Amino acid sequence: MIPPNAWHSIGYSKEFGVGQLVSVRLLGRSIVVYRTGEGELVGIEDRCSHRFAPLSRGRCEGSSIRCMYHGLLFDRDGQCIEIPGQRSIPPRARLRTYPIAEQGGWVFAWGADDVAADHSSLPDFLSLDDKDFVFGTGKIDYEAAAEQVNANLLDFTHAAYVHPSSFGSSEESWGQARCSIKSVENGLSIHWWVPQSLSYDTPGVQMDAYVDNYLTYDYTVPGHLSMWARSYPAGTAQRLDFGAPDIQPLVTEYSGQSVCATGDRTSRYFYVWGVASSLPDAQGVIADRLAMASRAFEEDRIMIEAQQRVIDETPGDIPMIPNAADKAITLFERLMMKTSHQRQAGRKADVTKAAAIL
Amino acid sequence: MIPPNAWHSIGYSKEFGVGQLVSVRLLGRSIVVYRTGEGELVGIEDRCSHRFAPLSRGRCEGSSIRCMYHGLLFDRDGQCIEIPGQRSIPPRARLRTYPIAEQGGWVFAWGADDVAADHSSLPDFLSLDDKDFVFGTGKIDYEAAAEQVNANLLDFTHAAYVHPSSFGSSEESWGQARCSIKSVENGLSIHWWVPQSLSYDTPGVQMDAYVDNYLTYDYTVPGHLSMWARSYPAGTAQRLDFGAPDIQPLVTEYSGQSVCATGDRTSRYFYVWGVASSLPDAQGVIADRLAMASRAFEEDRIMIEAQQRVIDETPGDIPMIPNAADKAITLFERLMMKTSHQRQAGRKADVTKAAAIL
Amino acid sequence: MIPPNAWHSIGYSKEFGVGQLVSVRLLGRSIVVYRTGEGELVGIEDRCSHRFAPLSRGRCEGSSIRCMYHGLLFDRDGQCIEIPGQRSIPPRARLRTYPIAEQGGWVFAWGADDVAADHSSLPDFLSLDDKDFVFGTGKIDYEAAAEQVNANLLDFTHAAYVHPSSFGSSEESWGQARCSIKSVENGLSIHWWVPQSLSYDTPGVQMDAYVDNYLTYDYTVPGHLSMWARSYPAGTAQRLDFGAPDIQPLVTEYSGQSVCATGDRTSRYFYVWGVASSLPDAQGVIADRLAMASRAFEEDRIMIEAQQRVIDETPGDIPMIPNAADKAITLFERLMMKTSHQRQAGRKADVTKAAAIL
Repeated sequence: MIPPNAWHSIGYSKEFGVGQLVSVRLLGRSIVVYRTGEGELVGIEDRCSHRFAPLSRGRCEGSSIRCMYHGLLFDRDGQCIEIPGQRSIPPRARLRTYPIAEQGGWVFAWGADDVAADHSSLPDFLSLDDKDFVFGTGKIDYEAAAEQVNANLLDFTHAAYVHPSSFGSSEESWGQARCSIKSVENGLSIHWWVPQSLSYDTPGVQMDAYVDNYLTYDYTVPGHLSMWARSYPAGTAQRLDFGAPDIQPLVTEYSGQSVCATGDRTSRYFYVWGVASSLPDAQGVIADRLAMASRAFEEDRIMIEAQQRVIDETPGDIPMIPNAADKAITLFERLMMKTSHQRQAGRKADVTKAAAIL
Repeated sequence: MIPPNAWHSIGYSKEFGVGQLVSVRLLGRSIVVYRTGEGELVGIEDRCSHRFAPLSRGRCEGSSIRCMYHGLLFDRDGQCIEIPGQRSIPPRARLRTYPIAEQGGWVFAWGADDVAADHSSLPDFLSLDDKDFVFGTGKIDYEAAAEQVNANLLDFTHAAYVHPSSFGSSEESWGQARCSIKSVENGLSIHWWVPQSLSYDTPGVQMDAYVDNYLTYDYTVPGHLSMWARSYPAGTAQRLDFGAPDIQPLVTEYSGQSVCATGDRTSRYFYVWGVASSLPDAQGVIADRLAMASRAFEEDRIMIEAQQRVIDETPGDIPMIPNAADKAITLFERLMMKTSHQRQAGRKADVTKAAAIL
Repeated sequence: MIPPNAWHSIGYSKEFGVGQLVSVRLLGRSIVVYRTGEGELVGIEDRCSHRFAPLSRGRCEGSSIRCMYHGLLFDRDGQCIEIPGQRSIPPRARLRTYPIAEQGGWVFAWGADDVAADHSSLPDFLSLDDKDFVFGTGKIDYEAAAEQVNANLLDFTHAAYVHPSSFGSSEESWGQARCSIKSVENGLSIHWWVPQSLSYDTPGVQMDAYVDNYLTYDYTVPGHLSMWARSYPAGTAQRLDFGAPDIQPLVTEYSGQSVCATGDRTSRYFYVWGVASSLPDAQGVIADRLAMASRAFEEDRIMIEAQQRVIDETPGDIPMIPNAADKAITLFERLMMKTSHQRQAGRKADVTKAAAIL
C-alpha cells in the first residue's frame, strides 16, 4: 500500500543536466524528467499522445520536449504545441505532468494527480550542499516491493543477522541494543542504542576498538530515512541507562536513504552517507563508508529479493506472523494507509462539492 | 487486427534447401516448412500428432517428414502414413497444412484454413531473379506487433526524426516533402516527393550532392511494400509542381519489404534492396545500400520496440490521438479489417449453406 | 497429475552434509532440507513464519534452523522456539514439515501432508553402498513437466530416433525389439529384448561388436526407474524366442533413475549408473558410462523441452493421439491417478470420521 499522494525519490540533482532526458519509473508508470534551459525540472508521462512512442527517446528544446518518432512538440505543461505538417493541434493532445521538487540535492516526484502536491511534506534530508559534510551517494534497484525495503529499514535488528560483519555490530551488540519509537509529523522517530559495536576507522579521531552507537532517525512517508549516527565511548549507553546522550560524541555521521516504489514488485533505493568535512582526508573516509554501506545494502538486497520470491509463491491465505520488533513496521503501515485514505477522502469531497454545485 | 486469409512472408526461396526443415512462426503458431525432393514447398503445423514433439526436429524423407521422437511419418498432406511397430494408422493422426507460395524468390504462407488460398492476392514484388538488378536481402525480428511496423512503413515522415542521417533526408527535406495516396487492389499506392536529399554515392552516375527523390510504393495486405526510388536533379519537384515526373531519373533503385505477424506482440521484417546490375561495381553499391538500410531499420526497431513497451503498459482506455499524416495508416487498417471480415462472411455463408442442406 | 502422497526424489545422501542447508523444489513449493548433528534429515517449508524470508539462507544450529533475517529459531518439528528480544512465542509460529526418507544413498521427500508417509512405498533402488558395484550419479533440470519425462522413460522406442548413436542401438535394433509389460506393486515391470546393439567397450569382458541386450526395469510411482541391463551374444533373443534368458549374461549393468516434479512445468531428473566393481578399471568404465548416459539424457532434454513448448502453445482441445507403444504410459497414468485418488478418499474418510465424532 504505497500512497501516490507523497513525494517519491527519483534521483539526485546532479543526474539531471540541462536538456538531458531521464526516464524514471514510479508506481508502475514511466515519467520523462528533464531540466529546462532555465534550470527547472519538468516531469511528463513518458508517452507521446500520437502513437505512444516514449518521449524519453526524444529531444529537449528549451523548456519543451519533442518526440523523435514523428516530431510532435510538447510544452512543459504537457500540451502539444507543434505537429509537423499540420496546422491545427487537437487540445486533447495533452499529457499528464508530475509535480517535481528539488531540495538539498535530491529530486522527488509527486505521484498523485487527484491531490495537489504538498511541499510541506518534503523529507527533511540534510542538504547535499551542506559544507560541513562531504557526501557519497548510491542507488540499488530491487526486484522486490518497496514495502519489503521499508520494513527492512524500520527494523534495524536484522543487522545482527544480515550484516554480522559489514556494519561492525554483531549479534552480541544487538542483543544489548535498545530502541524507542515516537510519532512525528508524517512518520516515526526511532532511537537506537547499539552498545559494543566495532568503531569505524576514522583518521584524526581517537576511538577504542569498540564504541556505543546512538542512532536516531526519522522515517517518513512514503519511505524516507534521515539518520544521525553518533559514536560514544563503550559503556556510555549503560552509564546513561540508555537515555538520550547529552555529551559530545566521538564522531557524528549522517545517512539519508529513500525507497521509491517503481512498480508493484520493484523498487529503487537511494542512499547517501555523510562525514564531517573537517576530518583529515574526509574524501578518503567517505569513500570507505560508501564502500561499506554498498556492501551491506547488497546483503539486504539479496535477502529481500529472496524474501519477495517466497512471498510471491506463498498462497495468499498464509499470514505473516509479526514479532514484537515489528512495532515500527505496523505503525508505519498505518501511516501509509492513512495517507492513502486522505487522498480518497479528498476525491470524495470533490465529488460532494461537485454535486452541491449541480 | 491481422487477417489470416492473406499471404504472409515467411522467408526467401534461397533459405529453403531440399530436405531442410525450417520452423517459422505465423500468427502465434509454428509451421515446419520444407522443400520436397521434387522442389516443392510444404508447410505443416510443427507438432507431431502423437505426443506433440516438434516436427522441425525431425527428418525429411522425400516429400514426407518423420518425427524424430518416436518415428511417426507424415506425408505432404499432413496425414500420418507410418507408425513404427504398429500396423493400422488412425486417420485422425493428421496435421493441418498451410498453403505455401513461392514467387520471385520470396516464400509466403496462407494463414487461414477456413478460406481457400487466393493466389491472385500474392504481392507484386520485383523478382529477385530479375537480371537487370542485383539484390541484397535482410531480416529483422521485432519484439513488437506487426501493426506497429506497418504503421511505421505507411508514414515515411518518421524518417525526419528516426533516420535524420542514415537515409540522407533531414528534417528540412521532409519539411518540404509532399505525399499523395491512392487506393489500389488490396492496398494503397503512395507517392512521395522528398526534395533536397543527400544523394547516395553511386559510381558511374553523375549527381550533385543533393537530389530530389521521388518514391512510389504500393502497400498491400497484410504488410507488403514494393517501392521504386527515383532520384532527379535538385529542383525538379518544385519545377514539376510536385507532379509525377515524366523525365528520366538520374538513378532508379528498388526495395521490397514485408512484415510478418509472427505473434500478437512479435513480428519479422524482411527487406530487399535492388540496384541496376548495369552499374559499375553493382555488387559494391548494393553492399553499401544494404548496410545503410540495415542501420536505418535498426533505428526503426529500437523506436518501435520502445513504442510497443509503452503501448503494453498504457491502460486500454487511453486512445492514440492520430495526426493528419496518419491517413494511410487509417485507410490501411480499414483494408485489413475488411479482409478479415470477408473471411468471417465466408464462414457465415458456409454456415447458411450447411443450414440450407439440413 | 502427480500424486503428492508418494516419495519424491530430492537428491543423493552425499549432497546433505551435517549442518548444510539445501533448498529443494517439490510440486511448486520450496523445502529446506538439512542434516542434524545426529545425522538425521529434516525437511521444513523454506519460509520463515515472520516475514517469509527463506530459511535456506539461514543457519543450522544442532537440530534446529535459524532464520538469518531477524533471527527466529525453529526446531526440527517446524515450531518456532526463539524470537530475539521477545519472551513469549506464538504457537502458530510453526512451519509445515516434510517427511524425509533416506535409503541406499538416495533422499526422498513425502509430498502430502494429508496422508501419512508410507515407508513401504519407497523405491527399491540398488543401494549406492553396494560393494559389488561402482556407481556414477548425475542430475538434469528440465523446463518440462515430470509427466513428459515419465512418458519418455516408459517408452524406450524413442531411443531409435533420439539416441541413434549414443546408446548403441539403432533404428534397425529397435525394429527387431520386443517388449512385455506386467503390473507390479505400485508400478510396472517392463522387459525389453533389443537385439543387435553395439556392445559397450568393457575391459576384461570378451564381447563381439554386437550383442543382444535384455533390459528389465520396474517403473514405480511417482517416477522411479530401477533397471538391470544384461548383454548376451547376438542371436540369443531369437534363439530364446524372445523369452526370459536363463543363461549367464556377458555383462550386467545397473541404472536407477528418478523424476521429481519440482513444479507444474519443471522437473529434476536423477540418474545413477553402476558397473561391477570386479571389472578391471571399474572406475574408468563407470566414467565412460556416465559420460555416455549424460550425452544421451541431454538428447532427451532437448527433445522433451521442445515438446513441452509445443504442448504449452497448443490449444487445449487438441488431443494427443496415442500409439500402440504408449501402453505403459497409459497404465502408469492410471496408477498415478489411482494414487492421487487414494489420498482424496483418505481425506473424505477423515471428514466422515470428524462428522461422526461431532
